[in-house]
Amino acid sequence: MRARRKSVPVRVGDVVIGGAAEIVVQSMTKADTRDVKATLNEISRLKDANCRIVRVAVPTKEAAQAMVEIKKASPLPIIADIHYDAPLALLALEAGVDGLRLNPGNIKDPEKVKEITRRAKEREVPIRIGVNAGSLPGRPKEGAGVRPPTEEVVTAMVNAALGHIHILESLDFNLIKVSMKASDPPTMIAANRALADKISYPLHLGVTEAGPPRTGAVKSAVGIGVLLEEGIGDTIRVSLAGDSVDEVEVAYGIVNALAEKLTGPNLIACPMCGRLEIDMLPMVAEVEQALKKIKRPINVSVMGCVVNGPGEGQHADIGIAGGKNKGILFKHGKIVGTFPENELVPALLRELDAIAKEDEQKLAS
Amino acid sequence: MRARRKSVPVRVGDVVIGGAAEIVVQSMTKADTRDVKATLNEISRLKDANCRIVRVAVPTKEAAQAMVEIKKASPLPIIADIHYDAPLALLALEAGVDGLRLNPGNIKDPEKVKEITRRAKEREVPIRIGVNAGSLPGRPKEGAGVRPPTEEVVTAMVNAALGHIHILESLDFNLIKVSMKASDPPTMIAANRALADKISYPLHLGVTEAGPPRTGAVKSAVGIGVLLEEGIGDTIRVSLAGDSVDEVEVAYGIVNALAEKLTGPNLIACPMCGRLEIDMLPMVAEVEQALKKIKRPINVSVMGCVVNGPGEGQHADIGIAGGKNKGILFKHGKIVGTFPENELVPALLRELDAIAKEDEQKLAS
Repeated sequence: MRARRKSVPVRVGDVVIGGAAEIVVQSMTKADTRDVKATLNEISRLKDANCRIVRVAVPTKEAAQAMVEIKKASPLPIIADIHYDAPLALLALEAGVDGLRLNPGNIKDPEKVKEITRRAKEREVPIRIGVNAGSLPGRPKEGAGVRPPTEEVVTAMVNAALGHIHILESLDFNLIKVSMKASDPPTMIAANRALADKISYPLHLGVTEAGPPRTGAVKSAVGIGVLLEEGIGDTIRVSLAGDSVDEVEVAYGIVNALAEKLTGPNLIACPMCGRLEIDMLPMVAEVEQALKKIKRPINVSVMGCVVNGPGEGQHADIGIAGGKNKGILFKHGKIVGTFPENELVPALLRELDAIAKEDEQKLAS
Repeated sequence: MRARRKSVPVRVGDVVIGGAAEIVVQSMTKADTRDVKATLNEISRLKDANCRIVRVAVPTKEAAQAMVEIKKASPLPIIADIHYDAPLALLALEAGVDGLRLNPGNIKDPEKVKEITRRAKEREVPIRIGVNAGSLPGRPKEGAGVRPPTEEVVTAMVNAALGHIHILESLDFNLIKVSMKASDPPTMIAANRALADKISYPLHLGVTEAGPPRTGAVKSAVGIGVLLEEGIGDTIRVSLAGDSVDEVEVAYGIVNALAEKLTGPNLIACPMCGRLEIDMLPMVAEVEQALKKIKRPINVSVMGCVVNGPGEGQHADIGIAGGKNKGILFKHGKIVGTFPENELVPALLRELDAIAKEDEQKLAS
């Protein structure tokens, strides 16, 4: 992985974004914001999934009023998502939100922008400028089924971002983060690269409207992954037409895929092939489930056969490899037992359970 | 996307890999190779998913014998996956396979290697050299939960690949492809980058043993995506502990995420948020299902609300955007109808059905 781009850190509540901070995973609630209970319930599930910051849409005055209760009870820092409407931004700031997502250029009255930045500055609340390829003014049209003409779109996106930034800077406001999103990875990759050298504000990455979980996860992993691998990006949000907890899981999948050190369990499972002599899929599913309780960084491998099994398994902290009706359990490169097929996974699960209990006790103490 | 690395094309059956050819998606059967019917059934499903080449494990003499029937009936070019065993490679060649996956350095008898390359050359059958980080001889051990020391592993992988290549080249055999796989993306990314400049053979990319479909898809998208984006890679295989058809779908998801032109339908769906006033998830699922029948490149968008909906939707070829109890249908930037919520998706599905029928007629004519 290449050296991380240097950015000036910004604080959202107690979470630092940019500078030397680790990549921050965030998400956005999908519950109706006016439904305080549903929104808080979603935030609580997001926290359990290790989401660090949550964005909440504030489309109406009722939603802004609900933010008072939501902010009071939220265990995570809250960013209010505002479009065009200055009074809603002011209400959100009064509600005590930890960040705003707002494009100052979209607010027509300069006095309103001045008031928002003054109050945000008083409260040390950062503003994310969010440029979307899809909603650029005067965006060039693409043909049927064709990608947008990336170069023109990228130039328009960079200019839009610099324009919004200029408005804030001219008001002596610099608690800024910026996102450059598009629904196609090439555009969002190019737009972030183009902006990365021009500013030192932290960058928020995302492939917008990536689609349903299966295909959206892949699009997001490609777009966000390419940028993170080259050191661009300080916080990420995966946008799926699905559960927000799925967004967080995919986001961590991307971050962990590139991490130099694991932050949790990593499951290495062979894809199976025509030399397989055990029924592997249910085994993998059981082990995957058991790993949810483990908090420590650990490589766990489930191999179907002896060709790659013991060899590749040796590099895992713990694992199993199947054979003909039986298999082996190994730890740190040493075989610690041979088991009949139906006892192989239970043997691994016992080991994983013991590890999970140790982790639980460590967390409790 | 950066310029594609130049490679010398190699032919596997009627499929060209490398050179100016498009990225080739391949997979590997998981059925027991000795079970000819099950293997052919899997190959047929892979073909329907647009898989271009299929690899089949040949671990035993019985499997090699089954290859005769499999090859005869297979609608896709077949690559025989061989480990260590020279007689199996010879049997597979006799069965008429279109490619071998075999590391010549693992076959102890130089005469056997000579015989394999001679016969492969006669039949114009290429050999893929496959280096796996996990099964390197004398591979340095990593600590608990820690990534392998990438630099040392990469050097060992490059040396292993060059060693195998040297054996084939010294026998005047150059129908070669090479893969450098690891179960962690940073190692496979670094290994491919390190080898890419040293040879001009096509590169086969994969994150090996990526795990179960959900997490494995993300790991694969990051590792393969980073390399494809920088122009490295001529054929890809996604390794999931799941159905091989899933591997192909994820592979196309990665390729399409970076493609300059779409090769099929692209679903843009907003992730929903607290301003949503329609029940979007079932809509997205229905549209996703309907798109399976469409073959043409087309951008289809499903947006939950008016904030990004019509704006971002305008750049799609066709789409819907929800509102309060009703929504709009648009085509090429123009609103073509307003519908109550329960008639919105049916209206889009009618349009998509008409497109699918046109595509079907075009394919049939």
